[in-house]
Amino acid sequence: MLNKGKEKMFLVTNDDGIEAKGLKELADVMRSFGKVVVVAPAEPQSGMSHAITVKLPLRIRKISEKDGVALYKCYGTPVDCVKIACNHLLPEKPDLLVSGINHGSNSSTSVFYSGTMGAALEGSINEVPSIGFSLLNLDHDADFSAARIYIQRIVRAVLDNGLPKSVCLNVNIPDAREDEIKGIKFCRQNRGYWCEEFDQRTDPHGRNYYWLTGSFHNSEPDAVDTDEWALARNYVSIVPLHIDLTSYETLRKLDSWKLENNP
Amino acid sequence: MLNKGKEKMFLVTNDDGIEAKGLKELADVMRSFGKVVVVAPAEPQSGMSHAITVKLPLRIRKISEKDGVALYKCYGTPVDCVKIACNHLLPEKPDLLVSGINHGSNSSTSVFYSGTMGAALEGSINEVPSIGFSLLNLDHDADFSAARIYIQRIVRAVLDNGLPKSVCLNVNIPDAREDEIKGIKFCRQNRGYWCEEFDQRTDPHGRNYYWLTGSFHNSEPDAVDTDEWALARNYVSIVPLHIDLTSYETLRKLDSWKLENNP
Repeated sequence: MLNKGKEKMFLVTNDDGIEAKGLKELADVMRSFGKVVVVAPAEPQSGMSHAITVKLPLRIRKISEKDGVALYKCYGTPVDCVKIACNHLLPEKPDLLVSGINHGSNSSTSVFYSGTMGAALEGSINEVPSIGFSLLNLDHDADFSAARIYIQRIVRAVLDNGLPKSVCLNVNIPDAREDEIKGIKFCRQNRGYWCEEFDQRTDPHGRNYYWLTGSFHNSEPDAVDTDEWALARNYVSIVPLHIDLTSYETLRKLDSWKLENNP
Repeated sequence: MLNKGKEKMFLVTNDDGIEAKGLKELADVMRSFGKVVVVAPAEPQSGMSHAITVKLPLRIRKISEKDGVALYKCYGTPVDCVKIACNHLLPEKPDLLVSGINHGSNSSTSVFYSGTMGAALEGSINEVPSIGFSLLNLDHDADFSAARIYIQRIVRAVLDNGLPKSVCLNVNIPDAREDEIKGIKFCRQNRGYWCEEFDQRTDPHGRNYYWLTGSFHNSEPDAVDTDEWALARNYVSIVPLHIDLTSYETLRKLDSWKLENNP
């Protein structure tokens, strides 16, 4: 339940960078729940996954603070933003970390590449309840109006119900009007991968270079309990993610390997 | 079982870059099993996690090919190396992807930040059996002689037994002599996080900058089935990792949220 005695404090970040419309929309939604601190990358960081900056120092700059929203930009990755916010900038852990709204999908195995979801997973590692939000529209001026309604609803539910320790939510929202969205589905992560095609070109000096392009291969197109299934049918998908990558099923089988006797 | 009819082909990569001693040691061990193709980052990529290069084109250069070892450097991340190798460079999928030997530990939640493990997980996503190897020694001239013995043994076991689909192995090796290492333990991923300390400095222009430093907090120091426990006792730890981040336990509970009735 919401603690009425003290205003909640929310950390907002993303991977599209401080200028992204999706970030502003998310900060604006969160303001209705309490105090907002935005710590976002100075530059776009799509595809940066869970990367951290180890070879260069980090810089962070306060942009503004007004009407309950403090805005900082960090010259680093999304995970750097979370680390410097939680370990240095904020006087205490935020009540909730929200990342996004990403311009584009982060469903299925795309969670591995996504800086938006890297930040949310980093929140979980730091024992901060965390949610990543993504809209299935890459346009920099995308319409977030239906997304805002669902984000409001999901944040309210998380504040009311809490999240298990070490679990964050991966929320993807169809690119559709409010009246077209059919509701919310709790899902598992779809199995699949990107079939990459390397667009080969030659520079003016005669050397080859490659642009990474690709299309998503759905390894289980007939499954009805996955995020891909839900999104294809205009549902908002919520996949709860945890940070323990151990395959316990495999772990139980490995003892039969008898490695010690097989030098 | 090993297919005697056709020489196996192995993809070797890392995150410390093409010049790292650990990479050369690993390629050398793998040569005893078959043909080796090394595709490694041109520059060190520690902390790059599962990042991919989306804003810049990739370049790849063949360095050499002799005695069954082909060597390529890629101007990108470890995951870029895997993608360009599996989707462009190699005529068919490798029989096994090995990543490392990393100079430094990748146990517990460090898997999230590690480029070495990013490459191994990317192998799994691409349905290639994959193993990441790390030695608990950061020195660029570390002694890999005990590590080589265990890698040989583990690779042999994986070739004999296979790996389940979507599962890779995270292998960490103590910094110890062969006679000090007690054997191999199959483990689960230890819970823990990095307590970051931001070392604040001021540049000649009076602006602050921060170096990311930190120490690992073990959230379950008394657990006896984790990689941290095994490594602290001079065992080689093997954690099987899978690429489905779904928390099924949470998924079962979420239906009680009744979000649709709580707008």
